[in-house]
Amino acid sequence: MFANRFDRVRTAMARDGVDVLLLSVGPDLPWLTGYHAMPLERLTILVLPVDGVATMLLPAFETARVSPQPDLFRIEGWGETDDPIARAAALVGSARNLAIGDHTWSRFTVLLQQAMPAATWRNAGSVTGPLRAAKEPAEIEALQRAASGVDRVAAALRGGEIPLIGRTEADVSAELGRRVVAEGHAKVNFAIVASGPNAASPHHEPGDRVIGPNEIVLCDFGGTTEEPEGRPGYCSDITRCVFTGEVPAEIAEAYDHLLDAQQRATAAATVGTAAGAVDAVARGRLAEVELDRYFLHRLGHGIGVEAHEDPYLVDGNEVPLAAGNAFSIEPGVYVEGSWGARIEDIVVATADGPLALNTVDRELAVVDR
Amino acid sequence: MFANRFDRVRTAMARDGVDVLLLSVGPDLPWLTGYHAMPLERLTILVLPVDGVATMLLPAFETARVSPQPDLFRIEGWGETDDPIARAAALVGSARNLAIGDHTWSRFTVLLQQAMPAATWRNAGSVTGPLRAAKEPAEIEALQRAASGVDRVAAALRGGEIPLIGRTEADVSAELGRRVVAEGHAKVNFAIVASGPNAASPHHEPGDRVIGPNEIVLCDFGGTTEEPEGRPGYCSDITRCVFTGEVPAEIAEAYDHLLDAQQRATAAATVGTAAGAVDAVARGRLAEVELDRYFLHRLGHGIGVEAHEDPYLVDGNEVPLAAGNAFSIEPGVYVEGSWGARIEDIVVATADGPLALNTVDRELAVVDR
Repeated sequence: MFANRFDRVRTAMARDGVDVLLLSVGPDLPWLTGYHAMPLERLTILVLPVDGVATMLLPAFETARVSPQPDLFRIEGWGETDDPIARAAALVGSARNLAIGDHTWSRFTVLLQQAMPAATWRNAGSVTGPLRAAKEPAEIEALQRAASGVDRVAAALRGGEIPLIGRTEADVSAELGRRVVAEGHAKVNFAIVASGPNAASPHHEPGDRVIGPNEIVLCDFGGTTEEPEGRPGYCSDITRCVFTGEVPAEIAEAYDHLLDAQQRATAAATVGTAAGAVDAVARGRLAEVELDRYFLHRLGHGIGVEAHEDPYLVDGNEVPLAAGNAFSIEPGVYVEGSWGARIEDIVVATADGPLALNTVDRELAVVDR
Repeated sequence: MFANRFDRVRTAMARDGVDVLLLSVGPDLPWLTGYHAMPLERLTILVLPVDGVATMLLPAFETARVSPQPDLFRIEGWGETDDPIARAAALVGSARNLAIGDHTWSRFTVLLQQAMPAATWRNAGSVTGPLRAAKEPAEIEALQRAASGVDRVAAALRGGEIPLIGRTEADVSAELGRRVVAEGHAKVNFAIVASGPNAASPHHEPGDRVIGPNEIVLCDFGGTTEEPEGRPGYCSDITRCVFTGEVPAEIAEAYDHLLDAQQRATAAATVGTAAGAVDAVARGRLAEVELDRYFLHRLGHGIGVEAHEDPYLVDGNEVPLAAGNAFSIEPGVYVEGSWGARIEDIVVATADGPLALNTVDRELAVVDR
C-alpha cells in the first residue's frame, strides 16, 4: 500500500516539476508512511526526492517509534544538540523546487527557507491532495466503518437515548464524544451541539447554554477511526438535528426543503460532475423557496485521513468529481437569532453513482426529554 | 489582561523591527486574545500592526465564535467564495517586516509569501516566546492547578488504585487520560505508558504490550486545563515510575541517583542561572556514576499555554532563567532493550528560589497488581 503511494507521489512530482517533497506533521505523512510525527518543537520531516533515497529525519530518541520500511525510506535520528534544519537542508542538497507539507509548522518552514535561500516553495497539497482524494477500496471501507460508527450515535440521539432537556450543550457534546470513541474511533475531532438560536451559528462552540423544551438541537460530530498500528485512521462527520417538542410548522416546512436539497445534491454528485455544480444543485433548490440566503457556507468538503480535504464542493470549483472521491453533502439554513438546521452525510462518487455512507434517518426527530 | 499583552507584544515588535505580526492556529492567539482559531482549511488570522488597528480575519460564519474586544481588534469575516489570502495581504498593506505565528499551517504561509513577494518573514515566536515565558501570577496559579490535578492522578498510580499487571499499556494510558480529564483538564495532550524494555524509549507510543510482574512502568502524562470561556488553558506534565514487584538492586540504585540528579537540578534552577547550566547539573550528577550516557535528551522545556515552549533547558542555551519562568525538570536513564526511568516535575523560577509545582512523592513505588 505505502509503496504504491510512494510511486504515485513520485509520478505526480515528476509531472509537476517538484524535486523534493518535505513532509512533517499533518495527514500526508501517515497516509504515505503510516507514521504520525509528534506535533512538537522537535522537527520530524520526511525528505522525499523525486529520484533517489528518501529519509525520515526525526529526534534520535523517537526513532524507535517508526516501523522500518527500508525499501521506502531510511531513518535518520538527530541528537538534542544537533541542528535539524541544517540536517534537513543537507538532505535536500542542491534541489531547488521544493514542496512543503501543508500542515508543517511555519516555525520550521521559515527556518528551512533561510537555510535554502535559492529554493522555491510550493504546497505539498498540490501534489498529494488529488492523490489522497482518489480513495482506494480499503479506504472506502474504513470510511464506511467510520460512518457506521457515528450513524449508531446519531440513531441513539434521534431515538431519545441521550437526554437533552435541562443539560448544557457542553455536557451533551461530551457525551456524544464518548459515544463516538466507543463506536470505534481513536479520537473525537469535534462534537458541535447548538441549541435554539445557537443553531444559527454553523461552527457554534458548545457552551453553558441549557437546552430547553421546544428547541432545535443541531449535532455535528465526528472522529478518526482506530486502526491497527502503522495504519492511518479515517474520519467520520455527520450532522443530524432533533427537536425537543412539537415542531412548529415554519421549521418543519423549511426542514423538508433542506432535506430535499440535500437529497437532490447527493443524487447529483456523480463522477464527472464539477464539484461546484453539486453545490449549485442544493443552493438552487433552496432558492426556489427563498431559503438560499440562509445557506451561509459551501455544500461540502472531501474527507479521508483528514477531516476536511480535497475535493471541496464550493461555487467556482470546476474540477470534476472522480470515482473514489469521498465528501460531505451538508446544506444548512441559519436564521440569525432564531434557529438553524443542517443535514450532513458522507457520500462517495462511484462508477455506479453516488453512495451515501451515512444511512441513519434524516428527518427532524422529536426528542421529548 | 489581554490589553496588557497587546502592549507588551507591540513594545517587543518595535524593539525587534517587526511591522506586522500574523497569528493563526497555535497557542499565541489564545494567549493574546482568548480566541482559539479552528485548525481547519479556512484561514483565521490576526493581523496585528505595530501601530494602528489590529484585525481578526476569519470565516464570516465563525465570527459569532469570537468574543468582541473592540479596544484590541476589529473582527472581519470572509465569505465562502472570497480569497482570504488576498484579504490578509490587503490588511498588511505595504509593511515589509512580517512575523508569522510558529504553528501557522505552511499551506497559508506559502500562499501569503506568494501574495507579498517583497516581504521578509521571521517566526512570531521570536517576539512572543520570551513574553509568554515570563508568567503572570494568574498563569502560575493556573499551572499550579494543572500540576495538582496530575499529582492526584500520580498519587492514584503510586498507591495502586490503577491496576497494571495483565493490562495493556494502551489500556492504562486510556485510564490515565480519563483521570487527567476528571481532574480539571479540558483535554489530554499525551499519556505515555512504557513498560519493561519499552521504558527505554523516551517517547514510547503505548501499545498492545501487556504489563507483567517485576517490571518498571514509566508514566508521563499531561493535559490542558479547562478554563472559563475566553481564557486559554494551561498545561500539566508529570512523569512518575512504578515497579510491579520487588525492585532489583541495580534499578533501585540507578533510580536513587536519578532522583538525586533531579533534585539537584531543581535546586539549581534559580533566577539568573543559564538554562543550559541547569541541564549540566543533572548531567554532571549522573556522570559521577557513569549514568550520563543513558540520559538521551535535554533536561526540560518551558510550559504554559503550550505543552513545550520557551525556555528550553538544553546544553548550549545561555539565556538566564527569569522570575516567572515555568519549565519541566525531567532527567531520565534509558537502557536499551532492558529498562528506563524518568522523573519529571514542573518547576517555577521565583525570586525566593525554585518552586516545584508537582509535589507528589518521587520514589520508585511498588504496585503489586
